[in-house]
Amino acid sequence: MKASPQRIAVMGSGSWGTTFAKVLADSDPTADVVLWARRAEVATEISELHTNSTYLGDLPLPANITASTDPAAVLAGAELVILAVPAQSLRQQLTEWGKAVEPGAVLVSLMKGLERGTDLRMTEVIAQVLPVDQSQLAVVSGPNLAKEIARGEPTGSVVAGSDRDTVEWIARACTPSYFRPYTNSDIVGVEIGGIVKNVIALAVGICDGMGMGDNTKATIITRGLAETTRLATALGGSAETMAGLAGLGDLVATCSSPLSRNRTAGRLIGEGKTLEQVAQEMTQVAEGIKSGAAVLDLAANHGVEMPITQAVVAVIEGKVGVSSMARMLLERDLKSEEIH
Amino acid sequence: MKASPQRIAVMGSGSWGTTFAKVLADSDPTADVVLWARRAEVATEISELHTNSTYLGDLPLPANITASTDPAAVLAGAELVILAVPAQSLRQQLTEWGKAVEPGAVLVSLMKGLERGTDLRMTEVIAQVLPVDQSQLAVVSGPNLAKEIARGEPTGSVVAGSDRDTVEWIARACTPSYFRPYTNSDIVGVEIGGIVKNVIALAVGICDGMGMGDNTKATIITRGLAETTRLATALGGSAETMAGLAGLGDLVATCSSPLSRNRTAGRLIGEGKTLEQVAQEMTQVAEGIKSGAAVLDLAANHGVEMPITQAVVAVIEGKVGVSSMARMLLERDLKSEEIH
Repeated sequence: MKASPQRIAVMGSGSWGTTFAKVLADSDPTADVVLWARRAEVATEISELHTNSTYLGDLPLPANITASTDPAAVLAGAELVILAVPAQSLRQQLTEWGKAVEPGAVLVSLMKGLERGTDLRMTEVIAQVLPVDQSQLAVVSGPNLAKEIARGEPTGSVVAGSDRDTVEWIARACTPSYFRPYTNSDIVGVEIGGIVKNVIALAVGICDGMGMGDNTKATIITRGLAETTRLATALGGSAETMAGLAGLGDLVATCSSPLSRNRTAGRLIGEGKTLEQVAQEMTQVAEGIKSGAAVLDLAANHGVEMPITQAVVAVIEGKVGVSSMARMLLERDLKSEEIH
Repeated sequence: MKASPQRIAVMGSGSWGTTFAKVLADSDPTADVVLWARRAEVATEISELHTNSTYLGDLPLPANITASTDPAAVLAGAELVILAVPAQSLRQQLTEWGKAVEPGAVLVSLMKGLERGTDLRMTEVIAQVLPVDQSQLAVVSGPNLAKEIARGEPTGSVVAGSDRDTVEWIARACTPSYFRPYTNSDIVGVEIGGIVKNVIALAVGICDGMGMGDNTKATIITRGLAETTRLATALGGSAETMAGLAGLGDLVATCSSPLSRNRTAGRLIGEGKTLEQVAQEMTQVAEGIKSGAAVLDLAANHGVEMPITQAVVAVIEGKVGVSSMARMLLERDLKSEEIH
């Protein structure tokens, strides 16, 4: 059995990157976990005060986490590299500092988005930019609202990759008492689940903002997971993955939580705000707004119908109003549920 | 195509029975929808004031709904009979007035529970007591919180039965603008989904009462649907049904809603209340408390593992405390998600 990683690089010190660094550092207090931060004041705060107040308030980070703004210094000697930068900036980031990744290092994506313009998943972007073998790539995804994990509330998650030994090695490196990783070989299903749930969460948020109840939202979640499953299986993923923590689990956590950016953005849209007003109220643009059109494009290229995604994108692009969207979603002919 | 039913009997005037009577009456204002009420004052209020204030406040019921306490009078001439009595009293009720059901009438169960002692589903109880053919039996289930439907908030639902024409005939009889029935042939899956979700909702409620977050609850919902699916498929139901509105949809609506009796009962237990205190705070006993042990018994007889149901039943029977239950559920060995 391969020894557990003694130096781990986490590229990106936003909410989820920092929290996942904590998961790794709590799991093995002898490992060095090094965060890369874009801003010097964030790196200094993490290394010296052991907090990341921008994203996690006064939560104390473990002593074996440090941070730096120098990607090459962070990546040097790291056998395990966690990628947690904004999805739309991944290609540019990797182009800048990808050469500093150690040969043979394992790369884990925490990112949930589809690259605009190319419709590529994050692991596909990594494989295009870096000279890595498929067995070096993995993803972690599940019902993982960062702030709850940071507080040590228990949850499960999925580690997916094509190489079983590598996936188990990653899973063993992230097992503090509050975080249970399950392994899976279906990288496509796990990535698609994480991407599309942001779009479905926008739809649920819109219904919420319009004052609709839990039946309506549960209907959108159910039909939303069905269209996500259609896309995932068309791309070679498995329906079983979508019924698990990285599909259903992540979708339900995101759609239930007031902490979710995508649900919050949807709610503001449902309340009648414009996209500009939503952008002003929120510090970060919800990923579902950025990835939605790429998801629809990918679906169309594979002959997959995604009516909820289509409705959300139509609203985002200003082609229909929210009340017409609700009608689009709910007025359908009587149909057998068995014919998806 | 068989003409739509002009006289419909709804046996049971609780929250869901009365609401479903409204769905039918709104769908066809020329049909006579007759509710059977156990208590004379409820029957009189429905017939004369067109309200059922015990369950639905001052909501006005359609004029084509009347009520009576005489089962034979309600059932006379009814081609469609909706059964909405408490699950554990069905056998006794049918024994009392089942002979008054018209020969050839279609019977639709709205009930969600397993009979204690026999572990039978509601349609199995009906088939044991009445001389009906399987083609005359159907169930309706989905993300259908009664109070939201009563307010006209849009939702989907599933009508399941073995005879396609009958199921479509029922679906056409319940299509007001706010209620979308989807047809399905999987009566076993639809019933099991409705039964087990009450137990899972208790588990989610307990987590809620203990102050756990949305990640934890989403994990319970996901693993809960997985164990429900294992039971349903072992009994001949389909995994696809469980991913639909009567499985996932109903589970998510119940687990999200403050209106759910089972989630509320779980929350009180999670806050440290005894079953006696819970019974005192609530007007009705949550069905999951009554059906839980029968579900576990049925699962054991079919060699199906249901760890969440097992934990909930252990708490209900006073064998473990809620904090041990949470540990039982969340501390598991690292495992592949693919091996359910």
